Amino acid sequence: MPLLVMKFGGTSVGDLARIRNAALKVQREVERGYDVIVIVSAMSGKTNELVGWVEQTSPLFDAREYDAVVSSGENVTAGLMALTLQELDIPARSWQGWQVPILTTSAHSAARLVDIPREAIDRKFAEGMKVAVVAGFQGVSPEGRITTLGRGGSDTTAVAFAAAFGAERCDIYTDVDGIYTTDPRISSRARKLDRIAFEEMLELASLGAKVLQTRSVELAMRYKVRLRVLSSFEDTDETSGTVVCDEDEIMESKVVSGVAYSRDEAKMTLVTIEDRPGIAAAIFGPLSEAGVNVDMIVQNISERDYDNHPGAVTDMTFSCPVNQVARARAAMEDARAAGIISYDDLAVDTEVAKVSVVGIGMRSHAGVAATMFRALAAENINIKVIATSEIKISVLIDRKYMELAVQALHDAFELEKAA
Amino acid sequence: MPLLVMKFGGTSVGDLARIRNAALKVQREVERGYDVIVIVSAMSGKTNELVGWVEQTSPLFDAREYDAVVSSGENVTAGLMALTLQELDIPARSWQGWQVPILTTSAHSAARLVDIPREAIDRKFAEGMKVAVVAGFQGVSPEGRITTLGRGGSDTTAVAFAAAFGAERCDIYTDVDGIYTTDPRISSRARKLDRIAFEEMLELASLGAKVLQTRSVELAMRYKVRLRVLSSFEDTDETSGTVVCDEDEIMESKVVSGVAYSRDEAKMTLVTIEDRPGIAAAIFGPLSEAGVNVDMIVQNISERDYDNHPGAVTDMTFSCPVNQVARARAAMEDARAAGIISYDDLAVDTEVAKVSVVGIGMRSHAGVAATMFRALAAENINIKVIATSEIKISVLIDRKYMELAVQALHDAFELEKAA
Repeated sequence: MPLLVMKFGGTSVGDLARIRNAALKVQREVERGYDVIVIVSAMSGKTNELVGWVEQTSPLFDAREYDAVVSSGENVTAGLMALTLQELDIPARSWQGWQVPILTTSAHSAARLVDIPREAIDRKFAEGMKVAVVAGFQGVSPEGRITTLGRGGSDTTAVAFAAAFGAERCDIYTDVDGIYTTDPRISSRARKLDRIAFEEMLELASLGAKVLQTRSVELAMRYKVRLRVLSSFEDTDETSGTVVCDEDEIMESKVVSGVAYSRDEAKMTLVTIEDRPGIAAAIFGPLSEAGVNVDMIVQNISERDYDNHPGAVTDMTFSCPVNQVARARAAMEDARAAGIISYDDLAVDTEVAKVSVVGIGMRSHAGVAATMFRALAAENINIKVIATSEIKISVLIDRKYMELAVQALHDAFELEKAA
Repeated sequence: MPLLVMKFGGTSVGDLARIRNAALKVQREVERGYDVIVIVSAMSGKTNELVGWVEQTSPLFDAREYDAVVSSGENVTAGLMALTLQELDIPARSWQGWQVPILTTSAHSAARLVDIPREAIDRKFAEGMKVAVVAGFQGVSPEGRITTLGRGGSDTTAVAFAAAFGAERCDIYTDVDGIYTTDPRISSRARKLDRIAFEEMLELASLGAKVLQTRSVELAMRYKVRLRVLSSFEDTDETSGTVVCDEDEIMESKVVSGVAYSRDEAKMTLVTIEDRPGIAAAIFGPLSEAGVNVDMIVQNISERDYDNHPGAVTDMTFSCPVNQVARARAAMEDARAAGIISYDDLAVDTEVAKVSVVGIGMRSHAGVAATMFRALAAENINIKVIATSEIKISVLIDRKYMELAVQALHDAFELEKAA
């Protein structure tokens, strides 16, 4: 029997009517001949309520108890979903993490999946069960304690089940109807993509298109699980949504697939640092220890770049989220006071945003950067920092130009047109 | 190390402040040198919310899914209680039913306890844990599904742990400060009892003094667990509340310990039935199948009681809750239509109440019934039905006289005075 994994997020199971709506989508797939594993999140708002109680009770909480409390939200949804399916005459039952069992590491609140034994669920499918409803986001540690996978972990649960059970596809039902070339709130010409490569999705997700959790995309890429993102609030069929798949499956790819942005960035520059081996580690070690998520890093060309001889100086620029600036500044000042680094000044610009173009086609096509920079220049937008990877070019610009830049780049790469 | 079981009901853990208040009571016992097993209910209102969701989803629900959903309330409280204790620097952890494991039958929503293996919890006590917080009301079936013990099941969980771990005492914290000689809302002279025998408590509980679940008292009696009922909202010490214990421990018992009542009773009389062997089974079989909880049964003296010869007739009177009258009437009419029984008339009086006096001293003292009937006669209260057991005398009377009867009996037996 072919098997599908269907995952419903918190808003998709936010109340009993929505759970029923989701169950009808499951029923359709059962009628098409699939066995189905349904992964559910907690009803929207429930996890936040539980987290709030834990944090009020114990600011420095025991993560094992946090997990025991917070995982209960998914258990409730799993039972209600199984009951709803039974009302539709579909043989279904719920599974909590320990019942499968979903085996994880002991890293509570951020556990990693270790194994998902198939025996228990396979036996029930063999006995005639059509749908296994599994509580997402949770598992059980080697010590027999309940673990959680961290925020967005239900996506990861879904992909892992799809891999373990050899599912034909893993459908992620959410409150958007797919992945767009850019944010439709910024560019009215944004177009829904039918397909996108895993690598592109990873770049888009980490850049702010928060539809799929990054870990789940990585896992899907590793195990070649076909992911599909689609809306739980619309009528959907086999062609709905966006398929995230191996790039081999994408025939006629455009050079650029999408334009992503991140609004609340800050640019920090350490002025006049020593230009010597180990200086980067001396800077970014303390930042990492302080929990600063450094994104782009640019080292200016040294004043005398032909030689790293003693006395050479340079500047170092990096970006991080705006709300981490204070922490980053403290880490740098402490490092200077401790004699680990030296600098003349720490220049901070908190009024910047990041705009990126992403596409696997970039690998084989020259001229993407030139097109990007020309489009920004035509709008008189000054580029402050540039960073590139194999399938992405990012720039930091003044925040006030962010929307304009996204629109200009979307137009320049003609993303409103299908490939 | 001596061990205590402490159980906190839903109102005692109704919010974070109340959980903290309960934790302080646990802390006091730990400071006195006890290891403690804490049994918790769901926060008040939570179980009803979950039950409501299940019933709205599926009127004829799968009890296995009901249990999986409804048990989550206790899991949340258990985690929050463990966190609160940790904040008080007490080594504590939570245990869900399957983690202990609390082994039960597969009778979902009304499961019976089978075994509570001590190994896992004992090992943690040996490692220095001072408090095991256990989710009440739940267990796990031989099939590995979550079960619940039915309403009030947390009391039963508490007593079973006290028996399994040889606890010095099982303290049931609730919203009253003990067991009273009668309802203080009805008689201002009601007095809190320091001690009460298991048998008396069973009669009082089933008669409407709904402080302890009947099953938990039965279990405590069988395993000789000393129960104590006390308030979680008052300062309490070792002498607070009411101890429910073996009658051997009660030295100077009064003849009557308490006056109980049940307001919403109905009296039904089948007029002119055959007086033959098997007639009672023919009547009460169909009533039982219809789910009618018959309480008192009185068969009138047969018109010709010297012989059960063919043609002899009699009347049969029984009582049941008012809201089951329609069901009882239908069962009787169906049985008559099917030729199982015959009767001339079914007389129904829905305006009655039951008042009972209870006391283990009755066994060895004559004259209790006479005192009771005289006290009621003095108030001109007519007795409609009388039923007696070894330690209880119950009467049905007009409902409008119920409060008056309770006060008169409380006074007649001088229950306001300590033994």
